[in-house]
Amino acid sequence: MPSTQSEKVREHWVVSRRSWIDPAFEGKDDEAWGDLTAEPRGVDYTEVDVAGMPGMWVTPKGAAADRVLLCIHGGGFLSGSLYTHRKLLGHLAKRAGVRGLLFEYRLAPVATHPAQLDDVTAAYRWLLDRGIEPGHIAVVGDSAGGGACITVQLRARELGLPLPGAALLLSPWVAMETSGDSYRTNGELDPFFQRDAVATIASAFLGETGDPRDPMANPLYAELTGLAPTYIQVGGDETLLDDARRLADRARRAGVEVQLEVFPGMLHTFQMAAGRAPEADDALDRLAAWVRPILHAER
Amino acid sequence: MPSTQSEKVREHWVVSRRSWIDPAFEGKDDEAWGDLTAEPRGVDYTEVDVAGMPGMWVTPKGAAADRVLLCIHGGGFLSGSLYTHRKLLGHLAKRAGVRGLLFEYRLAPVATHPAQLDDVTAAYRWLLDRGIEPGHIAVVGDSAGGGACITVQLRARELGLPLPGAALLLSPWVAMETSGDSYRTNGELDPFFQRDAVATIASAFLGETGDPRDPMANPLYAELTGLAPTYIQVGGDETLLDDARRLADRARRAGVEVQLEVFPGMLHTFQMAAGRAPEADDALDRLAAWVRPILHAER
Repeated sequence: MPSTQSEKVREHWVVSRRSWIDPAFEGKDDEAWGDLTAEPRGVDYTEVDVAGMPGMWVTPKGAAADRVLLCIHGGGFLSGSLYTHRKLLGHLAKRAGVRGLLFEYRLAPVATHPAQLDDVTAAYRWLLDRGIEPGHIAVVGDSAGGGACITVQLRARELGLPLPGAALLLSPWVAMETSGDSYRTNGELDPFFQRDAVATIASAFLGETGDPRDPMANPLYAELTGLAPTYIQVGGDETLLDDARRLADRARRAGVEVQLEVFPGMLHTFQMAAGRAPEADDALDRLAAWVRPILHAER
Repeated sequence: MPSTQSEKVREHWVVSRRSWIDPAFEGKDDEAWGDLTAEPRGVDYTEVDVAGMPGMWVTPKGAAADRVLLCIHGGGFLSGSLYTHRKLLGHLAKRAGVRGLLFEYRLAPVATHPAQLDDVTAAYRWLLDRGIEPGHIAVVGDSAGGGACITVQLRARELGLPLPGAALLLSPWVAMETSGDSYRTNGELDPFFQRDAVATIASAFLGETGDPRDPMANPLYAELTGLAPTYIQVGGDETLLDDARRLADRARRAGVEVQLEVFPGMLHTFQMAAGRAPEADDALDRLAAWVRPILHAER
């Protein structure tokens, strides 16, 4: 059974659903997602221009300066910011002993695919241009940002850029055509991610002419051979469970080193309750234990 | 009538009252006070040791490095932290074009008066020791921290230290004996600061042998001559309204330059809704407009 603290994650999605259905609903607050997360303490935040985008270094005390978690924040490509995710990234970077970098890519519906992927790729290239070894970078993303952890590698490959050392995906959203049997099997359990909402978000992201099977938007249709070792976490009660499962399957069949972990009773991006909910802290412990030796290896 | 956004301040105090009465109440969350405040953006946060205490530089982009708002956070000397107040201080420091400094003094009931005053004085001395001109420092405090903006000056005077250039008091709490006719006149309007709660907080702060009329704890009984120019803001609906009024009266009669502003319909520390509520933003604009020429004057 979820902890009392993880129930706050459910409440967040319930309120999000209400404000989704009724845009005039007064509980709407784009920053509230980040209020789920406790302050990690001992982490500094410095805003910086990242390839022309608002960015933020998230620097735990004593972190290795030349090892970086590049965070692609979630929010359906429609929302999310430096501020919704700074604490979550702080918790993870602190555990991993590295710096984190956040940036604000352009949002839908004003900017549609592939604007987000262009921006994410620009941020990755910005890090490389600053002399950070690709193997000392792990991309980490939740929800929409989880999918972009894969597509940024596809794009990097196209451009002849080296790939990062690892990818950490939290509740990745990849199936733009809202396929996935878990929309049905977890339909009663997930307060927000009903097929109607996700389809609307996908349309906003893809734009009028966008193809939900474009491999650069939906990596279930991509050639995944050669991607970085990947660790995927997903909540057992979320409708996007099958997005994670199918992505893991496809990547494994392509020879990618993949670890998939399903957290029973948890919802979408339950790790946001870091510092409060034991399930979130446990999940971040596992992510850090897995990625730490990769990021701190000598190359 | 208060804005919709300022109603969130009321809700905060209603929830605080419930968790005060019932410590097992699940809505209790010591960090939630700071959730009222929007992110100011363009402000960096760097944790630092301040005279042995956890501290934090709050640095707006382009701020003058040698002008400082020293923030004495509120929370009844029982709660509050770097994190409840970092955004509020960020909003104010950004408007004033200066750096802010936060620190965590020891809290009651573990540490009782004068431990808090000792720690606040140590933070002020720490700034002086770093070569910041006293006239280029303004102390800013809310609630319990508002009273400490006065008592730190009394203590500095005793120690032969120079006084700061200005003091900004937001809803200051000074009357440890819970006198003040506004407990009665605003009793129905203020969701939290009923005399019972405030008396309990005062006892925790003063300890078993503490005197509620000790001038170093209750500046209504102090000799205020010679203190720095003082700007006091208070909500018209709060029970602590008379604390602000009487402190302003006494300081004026002692020859201190005092500006008192009562914000109709507002509650305790309504400025916490900065970046969301127009009343909070207006109040911070006024604070900054008043203190900016003092802090930026050449000496």
